[in-house]
Amino acid sequence: VIVAPVVLLLCAARPAPPAPPPDPAKTTAALVGGALSDGLTWARIADLTDRIGPRLSGSEGFSRAVAWAQAQLASEGLAVKLEPVKLPHWERGEERAEIVENARYGAQPLAITALGGASSTGPGGLTAEVVEVESLEQVAALGDAAHGKILFFNPVMHVAQDYGTATRLRSHGASAASKAGAAAMVVRSLATASFRSPHTGLTHFDDGVAPIPAAAVSTEDAERLHRALQTGPVKLHLLLTPRTLPDVDGFNVVAEIRGREKPAEVVLFAAHLDSWDLAQGAEDDGAGVAMVLEAAHLLSHLPRPPRRTVRLVLYANEENGLAGGTAYALAHAADLSKHVAALEADSGSGRPQGVTLLAGPGGAATLAPLLPPLAVLGAGSIVAGEAGGADISTLAPAGVPFVNVKQDGSRYFDVHHSAADTLDKVKPLDLALSAAAWTALTYALAESETTLPRAEPPPAVK
Amino acid sequence: VIVAPVVLLLCAARPAPPAPPPDPAKTTAALVGGALSDGLTWARIADLTDRIGPRLSGSEGFSRAVAWAQAQLASEGLAVKLEPVKLPHWERGEERAEIVENARYGAQPLAITALGGASSTGPGGLTAEVVEVESLEQVAALGDAAHGKILFFNPVMHVAQDYGTATRLRSHGASAASKAGAAAMVVRSLATASFRSPHTGLTHFDDGVAPIPAAAVSTEDAERLHRALQTGPVKLHLLLTPRTLPDVDGFNVVAEIRGREKPAEVVLFAAHLDSWDLAQGAEDDGAGVAMVLEAAHLLSHLPRPPRRTVRLVLYANEENGLAGGTAYALAHAADLSKHVAALEADSGSGRPQGVTLLAGPGGAATLAPLLPPLAVLGAGSIVAGEAGGADISTLAPAGVPFVNVKQDGSRYFDVHHSAADTLDKVKPLDLALSAAAWTALTYALAESETTLPRAEPPPAVK
Repeated sequence: VIVAPVVLLLCAARPAPPAPPPDPAKTTAALVGGALSDGLTWARIADLTDRIGPRLSGSEGFSRAVAWAQAQLASEGLAVKLEPVKLPHWERGEERAEIVENARYGAQPLAITALGGASSTGPGGLTAEVVEVESLEQVAALGDAAHGKILFFNPVMHVAQDYGTATRLRSHGASAASKAGAAAMVVRSLATASFRSPHTGLTHFDDGVAPIPAAAVSTEDAERLHRALQTGPVKLHLLLTPRTLPDVDGFNVVAEIRGREKPAEVVLFAAHLDSWDLAQGAEDDGAGVAMVLEAAHLLSHLPRPPRRTVRLVLYANEENGLAGGTAYALAHAADLSKHVAALEADSGSGRPQGVTLLAGPGGAATLAPLLPPLAVLGAGSIVAGEAGGADISTLAPAGVPFVNVKQDGSRYFDVHHSAADTLDKVKPLDLALSAAAWTALTYALAESETTLPRAEPPPAVK
Repeated sequence: VIVAPVVLLLCAARPAPPAPPPDPAKTTAALVGGALSDGLTWARIADLTDRIGPRLSGSEGFSRAVAWAQAQLASEGLAVKLEPVKLPHWERGEERAEIVENARYGAQPLAITALGGASSTGPGGLTAEVVEVESLEQVAALGDAAHGKILFFNPVMHVAQDYGTATRLRSHGASAASKAGAAAMVVRSLATASFRSPHTGLTHFDDGVAPIPAAAVSTEDAERLHRALQTGPVKLHLLLTPRTLPDVDGFNVVAEIRGREKPAEVVLFAAHLDSWDLAQGAEDDGAGVAMVLEAAHLLSHLPRPPRRTVRLVLYANEENGLAGGTAYALAHAADLSKHVAALEADSGSGRPQGVTLLAGPGGAATLAPLLPPLAVLGAGSIVAGEAGGADISTLAPAGVPFVNVKQDGSRYFDVHHSAADTLDKVKPLDLALSAAAWTALTYALAESETTLPRAEPPPAVK
């Protein structure tokens, strides 16, 4: 019994052996465990949606969101950079529509909402005949038949995967209609379910094309309008009074965890801070914001930072202009060749279903060995599907590889861009699983000994 | 070969034997076949919802619906009676709400809609603290704590079956709140699903109790309000400007197929013609109206009328007052002992799941033998559940037996009383199956050799 003090003394005298470098697998386990136990992703999405709420770029809500995001990142001990972006400022006004003339159909209000970027009908509204069209090409072929009319697109979304083709009509239909001399455009809401809830979104007018009034109608009202048109001509009264105000100053919110070995090499993990104005933006993109902040929390508290720099970006203006993504690419132009991967979480709060990739030849072989620790979460293998995101699309010309956690989006378009995009739609466990997968994937890319082969830049658009 | 003309001559000379009386089973087959092939139930619900649309009692829409129903029944060759009813006339005005004071929560609009019968806040609205309460009993126990407050009921409907208990709060909560001195009442929408869609309904003020403003909030906003209340006191600004106008003259629409043997004995099959004002009233109760009209069509074209009279009634004012049901019971008071059964279709367009019954002892044994031909449709057996309907409840004191086709109502409360109660929610095949079942059941009761034992009248309400 008397040897014990001596042993203690010997031990105390001997210098502690250097701690072995953390095993990446153990770090991944710690990240996953953190995301699935700290409750922080949920707390943050609840705070952002319930307290800040709607945050369309240019609005006061967006400014509040910037201050909020800055405070969240600062609370993790990170230095926060606000990178300036000039933001469009479009404000919704009154919005009403009604069938006013049809031999068989009575007047019943249509549930509508103006599309971002569209112009006003003036306070008196406008009344015009409706012409249903199926494609942008058909609009161009209408000739004089489009003159003074309200062109109506009725794209049916059966499943989330139909968004790609339908969104072309919402995004470009008003511009095509304006070119053809139409008075206004209405489009069926891009929605996979509806309780009379219209879904907004941007409509883009080509350079030199005069904006016209444009709105989404609920799927129910699109079907009624379609039925009315089967019985004969229909005139619609449309009142939309949005305003386009002067651009305002805004910011991308940026913070980083500096890499321990290759600090100049950047893995960028992003979401967009702005939302549409109709709701809290829980799925689009409160979920992404909360997951980026969870990555900030977990990665900034690692005992040892990852090999490369992880840069966290909360973009401005994804919804109505991409000014944030454009500003970032410009401000960091000299730097983009050192962006070794970019990830953007902008598909809601659904649970992981795999990983998608856009990189040069051999990319999958480089990425696949990093994924086994994500298998239990649902993100253990590379699956078909688009990689990238609207904001980080501005990095494509620099050949930055894109990697995504593909999330379950089967119900995403039930609420997307509508008044129903609210916190209650988010399932805390699914959100936590995705936060874990995105964080672990970001870490894996930043820690990996190799980087992904760079992507082929897309052909330049003339 | 020369005998043929002689045979023909003999045959022609012999008087035709009397046609055998139609077999009830064959008649049922013809009714079911008609409902499932003539497309008329669908055509009529489409016409009523798309052309006439919303038809709250007292509104112009309701008057148009009366004229429409009269024309439909007349087109079947039936004499139509318009039985007078004095109708309440309540009109929705502006409706907005917003959290204006809470230490943590920002201002975000709540999606709300006034409850029928509630009063106005005046054009300036009212601002008051919210107190969440769980029961009518709790309201009474609040004492001074209710004074000047907005009382908030938050009943969660997980499934359609929860309507019974939740509706008590919507129907009587405002009256209880008014008695307790509250300034207003808000109730979570009675809904099994929501995309930010508030669901209206009647709120009833007891005699001598002053109406106060009352509204339903969407389930999403009820949850947000509940979350806000967890963080501290909440003040709500509420603007509701409905108007209660003088009563107007209206009608129940009545027609009948006179019984061939016992014309004084009546089987009554009903639905309600009025709807709430927020939508077309496809499920509530366009479906019932279309099914009653289908019964009118099929039963009026039988080669031989059923043994007893089938009376078809499209009631006024089921939604906000029951004046139609009350007027019918008064006008036919002398006659009710001869009402041998009453059926009311007022649970949407879902397919049959059985038959429910409220009759005297031995009723099930009398009814069960009539049901086997309805088995393929889903209505071959008596199942547990309420029988009756709001309008025909006024026949209960006379002991009239109630029989219902129980329909699948699992998704009924997704749209019930909301702007989403539109034609697209109705599945044509399900509607036709139910129309067939209700028509065949009505026929079976009118043709049966025996009648159901009369029900025990409910105890008189003091």
